[in-house]
Amino acid sequence: MLSEFSLIDRFFARRAALARPPHAHRDTLGIGDDCALLAPRSGEMLAISTDMLVEGRHFFADVDPEALGHKALTVNLSDLAAMGAQPQAFTLAFSLPKADEAWLSAFSDGLFALAERHGCELIGGDTTGGPLNLCITVFGSVPPQAALRRDAARPGDDIWISGTLGDARAGLGVQRGEWNAAEPGDAAAFRHALERPEPRIALGLALRGIAHAALDLSDGLAGDLLHILERSAVRASVDVDAVPRSAALRRLAPAIQQRCTLAGGDDYELCFTAPAAARAAVEAAAQKAAVPVTRIGTISALEAATDRPAIAWRNAAGAPLTLTLQGFDHFHAE
Amino acid sequence: MLSEFSLIDRFFARRAALARPPHAHRDTLGIGDDCALLAPRSGEMLAISTDMLVEGRHFFADVDPEALGHKALTVNLSDLAAMGAQPQAFTLAFSLPKADEAWLSAFSDGLFALAERHGCELIGGDTTGGPLNLCITVFGSVPPQAALRRDAARPGDDIWISGTLGDARAGLGVQRGEWNAAEPGDAAAFRHALERPEPRIALGLALRGIAHAALDLSDGLAGDLLHILERSAVRASVDVDAVPRSAALRRLAPAIQQRCTLAGGDDYELCFTAPAAARAAVEAAAQKAAVPVTRIGTISALEAATDRPAIAWRNAAGAPLTLTLQGFDHFHAE
Repeated sequence: MLSEFSLIDRFFARRAALARPPHAHRDTLGIGDDCALLAPRSGEMLAISTDMLVEGRHFFADVDPEALGHKALTVNLSDLAAMGAQPQAFTLAFSLPKADEAWLSAFSDGLFALAERHGCELIGGDTTGGPLNLCITVFGSVPPQAALRRDAARPGDDIWISGTLGDARAGLGVQRGEWNAAEPGDAAAFRHALERPEPRIALGLALRGIAHAALDLSDGLAGDLLHILERSAVRASVDVDAVPRSAALRRLAPAIQQRCTLAGGDDYELCFTAPAAARAAVEAAAQKAAVPVTRIGTISALEAATDRPAIAWRNAAGAPLTLTLQGFDHFHAE
Repeated sequence: MLSEFSLIDRFFARRAALARPPHAHRDTLGIGDDCALLAPRSGEMLAISTDMLVEGRHFFADVDPEALGHKALTVNLSDLAAMGAQPQAFTLAFSLPKADEAWLSAFSDGLFALAERHGCELIGGDTTGGPLNLCITVFGSVPPQAALRRDAARPGDDIWISGTLGDARAGLGVQRGEWNAAEPGDAAAFRHALERPEPRIALGLALRGIAHAALDLSDGLAGDLLHILERSAVRASVDVDAVPRSAALRRLAPAIQQRCTLAGGDDYELCFTAPAAARAAVEAAAQKAAVPVTRIGTISALEAATDRPAIAWRNAAGAPLTLTLQGFDHFHAE
């Protein structure tokens, strides 16, 4: 059993400074004091997001700890991507049933490999005994006028999605025995999507000044897009056949495909809106970030004072569809 | 059962803006987007600290939720106080076994009453199901050169303590049946110290430019002071009879007093060092902050290259004492 301080030192503090970005403020103070000290880049603001991951709810007890370290940071960096922010730093607080050295070593490997790729420095933390629970707070830098906010969608905007949706939920279904993958390689692809999502940082940065509203898809398209609509006071029309999906997902039954892409969650792709006049600029930004993007619908104005923000689902032929979908809600069984 | 979004809205989001400080940056973006946006005051840096509180370890399952809301924020604000930082904002992530409205209402009352007193705005959060676990990350603003760092103690400095030490640990001992309070009112005083500690924000601000090093006492004087010594590469001599204690604590057996004051933890008082020439300035700062302070020892240089940072305990007559003490270590039973 390790003491708290030797744990922090062995697995976290020594690697924390390695991820320090070259643009870090020279006065930055990291692990070891009462507080860390951090400043955004000159003229920018700090974008801040916090996420808690609980065993049995966000991951299984037997999860590969290296994959867990990767994913715990990804879900937070994904929020920075959705804001168009450049990662700077993060804090990590966690409770652990016991101080298992092999587990901590693998977990910290997964965490720092991703942190170092994004120049994101661990600046503080807290460790304690208890049921396995991780809480990461992440800090990025963004010019306030360039931030990709949820309340910025405008009538006439296109709705775009990065990457493909649904593979993570398909992987969860395979793990749970809800369905089987059609081909042997498909199960591995689904599992990879579930365990190793990549935060779309480069795309978020490339969309500054081009996209209007953006968010990351963590709870499913149907529920998450509604957050943009509600905060922007607009409606959406979405072509369900246009929603991008992988070849592996297209080998599952159509009803499963629809459930996974529209209400699946855990995708960590960006959903964003941009004016129709900016289509070429969006494509160029996606190319720069090396991430495919797909147009799936349009934003329209509320038609009357009593009109409510909502998604009108249609198929490729334009025919309206009635779907019963629900985003992932953490206080309900899915 | 409430959904995640209605929970956040009912108990947290609506009150979050009430604590917004008058000096808040007008571009501040709070709850409801992928990230919050925050900037330190002009020319200052953000001081950042995170703490996780776990049921059964940091509080009992039957704790008064209003007191828990107060204490969960106190332990974080106390880190800002120890840095000399002005509170600005905080994020709250928590997992709960069930969405109990009465519990959440009382918890948020305790949390926001303290937040509003310190102009500290809730800017983001995360809620999920799971064993009760709270994670708060707090943000303050401080000029980097005025920050009260742990590595700034210098030979010749006095060592000071705010308030009194040991009452919280005495209260825990009463709850656990380790000992009894000597008088009926003493148990209530101990319990108050355990459940309702006050962060020494005003004192931390008043000590800017006066104190050298500072930290807050969360794990016990013996362990915490050692952090200053190690980071500053100095030694300390401490008069155990000078360590301030309440009248209630002084009615317990001397061995219990010593254990509670030196290795108790959960005090959230400040321990700081300042040059002997600044004694009048320290007293004036304490008076301004309306918090008593007591001088308990001195800092000295390491005497040889092989000398290690350590505390030399002595009594009021100057005689050396050999004490076996251990700070609270979260991976050991205390």
